[in-house]
Amino acid sequence: MSGTLAALLAGGPDVVHLGLDAVALAPRAAGTPVTTVDFKPPAGGDPRRIALLSELLSGPAAREIDAANARALARLLASRPHLVGIGTARDTVPGMADDLFLHAGPPVTWERMCGPLRGAVLGGLVYEGRAKDPAEAERLAASGAVRFDPCHHHDTVGPMAGLVTPSMPVFVVEDRGGERAGTRTYCTLNEGLGKVLRYGAFAPEVMERLRFIRDELAPVLAAALALRGPVDLRTLMAQALQMGDEGHNRNRAATSLLFRELAPALVRATEDREKAARALSFVNGNDHFFLNLSMPMAKCLLKAAEGEPFSSLVSVMARNGTDFGIQLASMPGRWFTGPAQMVRGLYFPGFSAEDANPDIGDSAITETAGIGGFAMAAAPAIVQFVGGTAEDALAATRAMRRITVGSNAGFAIPALGFAGTPTGIDVRLVEEADLLPQINTGIAHREPGVGQVGAGLVNPPWEAFHEALAALAEHVRALAPAPR
Amino acid sequence: MSGTLAALLAGGPDVVHLGLDAVALAPRAAGTPVTTVDFKPPAGGDPRRIALLSELLSGPAAREIDAANARALARLLASRPHLVGIGTARDTVPGMADDLFLHAGPPVTWERMCGPLRGAVLGGLVYEGRAKDPAEAERLAASGAVRFDPCHHHDTVGPMAGLVTPSMPVFVVEDRGGERAGTRTYCTLNEGLGKVLRYGAFAPEVMERLRFIRDELAPVLAAALALRGPVDLRTLMAQALQMGDEGHNRNRAATSLLFRELAPALVRATEDREKAARALSFVNGNDHFFLNLSMPMAKCLLKAAEGEPFSSLVSVMARNGTDFGIQLASMPGRWFTGPAQMVRGLYFPGFSAEDANPDIGDSAITETAGIGGFAMAAAPAIVQFVGGTAEDALAATRAMRRITVGSNAGFAIPALGFAGTPTGIDVRLVEEADLLPQINTGIAHREPGVGQVGAGLVNPPWEAFHEALAALAEHVRALAPAPR
Repeated sequence: MSGTLAALLAGGPDVVHLGLDAVALAPRAAGTPVTTVDFKPPAGGDPRRIALLSELLSGPAAREIDAANARALARLLASRPHLVGIGTARDTVPGMADDLFLHAGPPVTWERMCGPLRGAVLGGLVYEGRAKDPAEAERLAASGAVRFDPCHHHDTVGPMAGLVTPSMPVFVVEDRGGERAGTRTYCTLNEGLGKVLRYGAFAPEVMERLRFIRDELAPVLAAALALRGPVDLRTLMAQALQMGDEGHNRNRAATSLLFRELAPALVRATEDREKAARALSFVNGNDHFFLNLSMPMAKCLLKAAEGEPFSSLVSVMARNGTDFGIQLASMPGRWFTGPAQMVRGLYFPGFSAEDANPDIGDSAITETAGIGGFAMAAAPAIVQFVGGTAEDALAATRAMRRITVGSNAGFAIPALGFAGTPTGIDVRLVEEADLLPQINTGIAHREPGVGQVGAGLVNPPWEAFHEALAALAEHVRALAPAPR
Repeated sequence: MSGTLAALLAGGPDVVHLGLDAVALAPRAAGTPVTTVDFKPPAGGDPRRIALLSELLSGPAAREIDAANARALARLLASRPHLVGIGTARDTVPGMADDLFLHAGPPVTWERMCGPLRGAVLGGLVYEGRAKDPAEAERLAASGAVRFDPCHHHDTVGPMAGLVTPSMPVFVVEDRGGERAGTRTYCTLNEGLGKVLRYGAFAPEVMERLRFIRDELAPVLAAALALRGPVDLRTLMAQALQMGDEGHNRNRAATSLLFRELAPALVRATEDREKAARALSFVNGNDHFFLNLSMPMAKCLLKAAEGEPFSSLVSVMARNGTDFGIQLASMPGRWFTGPAQMVRGLYFPGFSAEDANPDIGDSAITETAGIGGFAMAAAPAIVQFVGGTAEDALAATRAMRRITVGSNAGFAIPALGFAGTPTGIDVRLVEEADLLPQINTGIAHREPGVGQVGAGLVNPPWEAFHEALAALAEHVRALAPAPR
């Protein structure tokens, strides 16, 4: 934690900076001495971005941007994502096709794909029966036999490599509240830890587990869900945030609560008791099972925020292991990118930073929606996993209030007096505060076929936010009437 | 929180006062001005108790007491309580008999029993088929047709009224580690909230639930346990303390983790899927299910501490709704009592302090073992249930360090930098610090037949500790050689 940040945090949770005072901005930008010892100039002191910020925070469009953000946030807060079922990607995910593989992050070609994403693609080709082994799969992938598309282009999110192939089962999450009721988002079922496809592993055990998930687990869970009815993911997440989860790297409580909710119906819906027991054992053995539901829940919340032409809110943060991309709620589908960063973290025995791939996965959708790294204060035990102290966890959540326009009272954090999680990242505030969103994440080995090597903290690249700020200014100028 | 306590707590978690400096004691007792603004004299300034304290903290036996406490604490920390099975009280609990009802707290006659305990006795007589209705049960109870004995006299603990009747199923908890391996403790199965026997209710729905627990739930759980094998309760509790539980008034995480652990075996062991589903639904519907395991776990830990002739550690705290009793590890079985106190708490709609019975139940065994009110810092969400703020929860755990001889590294609290829970209440330190143990608890209606009306915080009566201190001094004098 930088000295600057520590000083700012010393003010406690009520240091909530929601806008830039244009009067104060000018003397600051001009270099006038400021009494705050650890003063950081807005936008890192860059004159061009300071001018953009001034325009977007106090120019003619500023009020429209603020109003658009308020509407976007209100819709996000009114969204009620429910787990409604499980389908096969081919038949369920919009725009899915037999020759299409989805991946995490912004678009990337086979040539530019990182090791773990390549590893997942090779595994996916074997899993789909398109290649008999990874070597054949590699030739096939390079030949262009499959097309690649970001998960986000299909209302889908995928952890780490985020690979979705046509025959994979996917959770179906549906918004059951607010103006955007009916919106659906999708995610595969979590494989667990160790050697898994999402970390780029493709050993026979990985294939066997994926087939178990497809052929046995998914049908059993689907039958349980059909009998029980939809599961309110937002309420479940709210409880989990009072039980030490933050919804990205710690999902033990939410997994436990989901397990309790589904088990009775699962038993009733499954004639073969051994199948029921195997399904329950698999979920019980995987404390990250709920991650693949917190992600589409977050995506569902953020889709509710989209479609405000003036909004400066960030609606997507996603990485493919090569590039980090963000989107704004005002321009859904348009990526602003920069290089994926290295994760600062703890490594499993036998691995070090040299083995690490840059940041990868759609799981930063959790932070975009105000959980994960933004809800660290709810999960002090996470510091054992990503490093730091319990105080750092509180400070991380407090710091994120400086770059968000509101908080989600539905996601209350007991340790912060039941304050809601900081929600609604405003690209203007990120630039003004010169403070990037904080992301909790796993670390994949940089070579295909290995798997996870650690976990830690990471930030997006500044390039993505600078690009988004400039694009927003241009976009808003085109929309807004000329100043009178 | 008193000004004194707040000032003492301002020093943070490292204010661990483990002994009384005899040199400092004399001037303090003599009234010499002390620089600490909020100074409280030891033993409330009572000259007789100050003399006793001086003898026990710095007299000839002090070292033997310290050494005995260290051994007792070491055995407590080495104890590994496991849930090993479920039996029927009549055949399982030592000394149980057909005409015997067990109850919470120290011994009490029918005449002196409080309303909720009487209500539970009436319900118990109907449940056992001894009376056809509560009116007949009342005549029977007054006639001496059943004998009453404290649960603690039978290595058993019971929440609230704590009633154990011969045909009730009981969890069997066994120590699987340390010197006292093989020690067994017992507790009934938790009924859930609302109208329940342990809060003194005896309506037909209460009877029906007790029969379901006996005839269906207990056999299904017993079969699951037999197939799965023993459940390590200490490890499970350790995880739950990282998930917002404190093991007394908040048991959602531990209940969830136990549910996950048992469900696969439960499904495999139960041919009738509907029975399996009903059992799972019942546990899923009761976030306090684990309380009746955290209690015998705590009792098992504390039994490991008993049997040190010089020990000043508290090994039992228990209330029958009329009297509050404590025991010391040096004199197992001997009660030191005072009047049960009123609970400071929050009431359910429609109820107020006027409806409340004084403090009742064996559940203070959790605090005696270092969880519950001593682990409040692990469960900031508990303040919604018992009142106060998240800061109060941290302060409560820190305060309890002043009256305990150690901490349990196996029960780490993330929000306190993974410090262990304060463990091993020393009657000398309670008197020296003039600070009583803090207990989280439910509040029963004072009339038989009603049930729970709220929850809150309570302390033991000073009388019990004063009596114990005096008895310890006498006991130690009889044991120790005369000073040379």
